[in-house]
Amino acid sequence: MPSAPVDLRLNAIVDPERAGGRDLAELARLCAQGGATLVQLRDKRGETRAMVEQARAIKRALAPFRVPFVVNDRIDVALAAEDDGVHVGPDDMAVEDARRLLGRHAIIGLSIKSVAEAEAAPIDLIDYVGSGGVYVTLSKEQKKPPIGPEGLARIIAVLKRRNEKLPVCGIAGIDASNAGEVISAGADGVAVISALSLAADPAAAARALRDIVDAGLAKRGT
Amino acid sequence: MPSAPVDLRLNAIVDPERAGGRDLAELARLCAQGGATLVQLRDKRGETRAMVEQARAIKRALAPFRVPFVVNDRIDVALAAEDDGVHVGPDDMAVEDARRLLGRHAIIGLSIKSVAEAEAAPIDLIDYVGSGGVYVTLSKEQKKPPIGPEGLARIIAVLKRRNEKLPVCGIAGIDASNAGEVISAGADGVAVISALSLAADPAAAARALRDIVDAGLAKRGT
Repeated sequence: MPSAPVDLRLNAIVDPERAGGRDLAELARLCAQGGATLVQLRDKRGETRAMVEQARAIKRALAPFRVPFVVNDRIDVALAAEDDGVHVGPDDMAVEDARRLLGRHAIIGLSIKSVAEAEAAPIDLIDYVGSGGVYVTLSKEQKKPPIGPEGLARIIAVLKRRNEKLPVCGIAGIDASNAGEVISAGADGVAVISALSLAADPAAAARALRDIVDAGLAKRGT
Repeated sequence: MPSAPVDLRLNAIVDPERAGGRDLAELARLCAQGGATLVQLRDKRGETRAMVEQARAIKRALAPFRVPFVVNDRIDVALAAEDDGVHVGPDDMAVEDARRLLGRHAIIGLSIKSVAEAEAAPIDLIDYVGSGGVYVTLSKEQKKPPIGPEGLARIIAVLKRRNEKLPVCGIAGIDASNAGEVISAGADGVAVISALSLAADPAAAARALRDIVDAGLAKRGT
């Protein structure tokens, strides 16, 4: 685990299938410039060599901002590009294996979609949670109906009971219109894909989202 | 690199898309029983968690035979399942990165499809080469026409000039009808997919192929 908790206020996810043709490193740079606090590369179809090169380019783009960078699923890519860690879901490598391979200082994020998963998660081995799908999204095939802010609040309650310091962000279909209610539901931040990568001005979109999140956290007194 | 050269006489590749519904661990066991000297898991579409479990099952199945086991492309799966190494191609992780991540004792195999690739390969970092496509195959989309035994012989000549001890096997479309001419072309063995995995009796098919390879090597005086 990193020495300080992961700042999860604005988790920007860049995905070649949801980038509208934009260069992902440039997109990551714009997100960081606008206030993203964590960047994730998600590429479910790419070839390994291209993914490693992509990860290295994003890492270079983020270096001036000191924004941590994780890769979805692929521990091999994270190791080769010396990223800060990985984000894993139920079909990806088990958290126990990922922690063993990446070491104790790496960031490991975990997707959690239900109260049952929140109860069962290896909570001492993870650094943050992405929970959802909160709303309907076009960025990923959704197998279950959205859980909504109420479902998110129930999952967060379980996670915070198990470890009150574990940062949790909502994910799926989040944009400036609903980010406020995600924070009101108890989340420490939002994970955003299309609302950043398909925005005309991703840096401005990131700034707007950060303002909403920061205001929501201030209102809650966090 | 492992302490002894890799025995490449019969490199059995198991692939869920070319297994005719067979369990891959059982298939690997039958191949080893019949005389396979190296087993590779190739899975270009699977999810990471399932691939790690599959690799662990194959490793357990091969343990009694002491047949080394590598995974195609995925360094993360090789590390998690503690396989003996990886086989990489031009779209996979660069050999330099793979060697750095896997350490000096791991087996690293490389696909080489042309004389130019043979000249350029990082020969001191690899343990064996799979070269082809020698013949037409249905196991993989082929972007170039087959190189035939003559093309294979030209590639082998370059590789052996650079390192006479580097084992090279032919790959693509190899079965009992043509394995002999692959060895006559100078190969140290054959890589086989469908002729083993789709055979009615994979152990018998492996034994027949090993006999042909062994006879060809004896004729060449190796």
